[in-house]
Amino acid sequence: MHETNRTEISTLGEFGLIRHLTDTLQSVNASTRYSVGDDCAVLEYPAGKQILVTNDLLMEGIHFDLTYTPMKHLGYKSAMVNLSDVYAMNGMPKQLVVSLALSKRFCVEDMEDFYEGLKLACSAHGVDIVGGDTTSSLTGLAISITCIGEADKDKVVYRHGAKETDLICVSGNLGAAYMGLQLLEREKAVFNQQLRENKGGNPRFEEELSHAQPDFSGKEYLLERQLKPEARRDIIQSLAAENILPTSMIDISDGLSSEILHICSQSKVGCRIYEEHIPLDYQTAVMAEELNLNVTTCALNGGEDYELLFTVPITDHEKVSQMTDVKIIGHITQSSAGCMLICRDGNEFELKAQGWNPLKK
Amino acid sequence: MHETNRTEISTLGEFGLIRHLTDTLQSVNASTRYSVGDDCAVLEYPAGKQILVTNDLLMEGIHFDLTYTPMKHLGYKSAMVNLSDVYAMNGMPKQLVVSLALSKRFCVEDMEDFYEGLKLACSAHGVDIVGGDTTSSLTGLAISITCIGEADKDKVVYRHGAKETDLICVSGNLGAAYMGLQLLEREKAVFNQQLRENKGGNPRFEEELSHAQPDFSGKEYLLERQLKPEARRDIIQSLAAENILPTSMIDISDGLSSEILHICSQSKVGCRIYEEHIPLDYQTAVMAEELNLNVTTCALNGGEDYELLFTVPITDHEKVSQMTDVKIIGHITQSSAGCMLICRDGNEFELKAQGWNPLKK
Repeated sequence: MHETNRTEISTLGEFGLIRHLTDTLQSVNASTRYSVGDDCAVLEYPAGKQILVTNDLLMEGIHFDLTYTPMKHLGYKSAMVNLSDVYAMNGMPKQLVVSLALSKRFCVEDMEDFYEGLKLACSAHGVDIVGGDTTSSLTGLAISITCIGEADKDKVVYRHGAKETDLICVSGNLGAAYMGLQLLEREKAVFNQQLRENKGGNPRFEEELSHAQPDFSGKEYLLERQLKPEARRDIIQSLAAENILPTSMIDISDGLSSEILHICSQSKVGCRIYEEHIPLDYQTAVMAEELNLNVTTCALNGGEDYELLFTVPITDHEKVSQMTDVKIIGHITQSSAGCMLICRDGNEFELKAQGWNPLKK
Repeated sequence: MHETNRTEISTLGEFGLIRHLTDTLQSVNASTRYSVGDDCAVLEYPAGKQILVTNDLLMEGIHFDLTYTPMKHLGYKSAMVNLSDVYAMNGMPKQLVVSLALSKRFCVEDMEDFYEGLKLACSAHGVDIVGGDTTSSLTGLAISITCIGEADKDKVVYRHGAKETDLICVSGNLGAAYMGLQLLEREKAVFNQQLRENKGGNPRFEEELSHAQPDFSGKEYLLERQLKPEARRDIIQSLAAENILPTSMIDISDGLSSEILHICSQSKVGCRIYEEHIPLDYQTAVMAEELNLNVTTCALNGGEDYELLFTVPITDHEKVSQMTDVKIIGHITQSSAGCMLICRDGNEFELKAQGWNPLKK
């Protein structure tokens, strides 16, 4: 956040700020007929396409912490979270409507940074920003993003289509974003502790501390997974190229456990997930060791991975095994067999949704 | 808000609460293909239709005050604000995606009340709730509503189409919602004052005060305009029935001045608005007198009317004059003539956007 060289938002006003942030936007999609500047955005999709709509509301202090999240990264991540929901339906995101509520703490430059991240994400995924509204908030920042996408009528993939014997697949690796969060939270605690210990002490120390950069070397990947997640457009494209239509799909935002339970309950099936097949990155394992955490627990319940979890018919086994960055981690069973984790030692446990649930905190 | 007989939201959890609020929803529109329960809602619109999308983010303490806004009314109004944006494009709203962020102050019963209002608005306007998300907030309530609607491809009306000699029309009457707000704010101030005067005093007085109902008799219309606004579906239907296609349109959320200036700047024209033709309700005039306010100023800058402001070719003069609840208040001029208010005494003033702008507060 900008502490000096601030341009107060009141100097532009609500409409001035929106114009300032959006007047260089250019649409790339034919389905975008009219963008920012009227009561609604106007879209037109070709016949045969179904339209996908999702919205996320992100609140400061709950979904993000600005003490360690740069505004540009926040803009990028806010977009990705929504794009990921459209990919999870086997669709392609096309438009974004962005509403922001901000307190007086924020200045024009903060919003420029936020939009820079937002635009970067949108241009990488071929998405148009078609609505941008700003208003004020008494405390903190609230971000509401609506994403609109398209899919061929017969290609939309729901959570409820998994069938017995289907293979359960996951993209990328799990638990790294959660480890990145632990790392950032640890550094924040250390920083606050040092500040407290120097209370009433040397003002120069405080000055130095505020410029101190914690040493994250060797852990860059974990930070990147937390601060700059990538929605898996590539996986949706690979599935199409391989002519694989998943029977069910969801993105992993609340942890593998929580998401596979959504698929199983909505599909009225059970599952067997094999611990040894859950994909982990080396840095995730090292960091779990360092923090004395069970790495499988982190992968199951960590959340914010934004990887895709999907099921395919067993007849697609060969095709799916050859896909880059996709692992088969288990299979679908009858509902009566329950949702089970098979551990490395052969023990079986019932999967529980301990996922990240801000309302239970 | 429910103070007693509260069911804490944590007893249901995030997913439980969403299910509880949305599991009785039934879709009425053919364009709604899949509603709440997956990563996205799935819609399908017929060829020849354009799709309208709008989002509003409403923040507690900025857009609404829960000391005098019942949750049911808040749900109703939150929907109306968005429906109004779709009508302002000459479209028909079809779907709503609702995201809520709530602090621990709120209980399940509060959310039930909110949804009751939301559903009432939706059923009156033939709209499906297709997405409902809840998350938590550190302070207060944030409401994000996205509305999706449709319009025939050649019937979408923008802000930028007004032409010289077009007639300027407005539905209903203006300034009443603002007067309702003044009334509620005045009663709140009186109540707080009485509480302060009794500080450390009689606990029974406090008890009585909390049940005291202020006397709003004769002013019900003003309160209704503030707490239960109605988006003007009927006007859009009348325009279609009369075969009138406005050249430009906008809904009045920030005050007549601000909105006509949007039309004029985007259409690159000027305007002449006649004070004597601005529609006012009797109660608005009485209340303005009581508060020593200029009623025209209130009508010009009050905001939250959710009436429609539109322009029609002068050839539609006869048709538009016969419309129920529509008044011609002026006409469009060349840009160089400016945007002018012609007062009852013949004086002319340039219109200024002093409208309700929360970022300038």
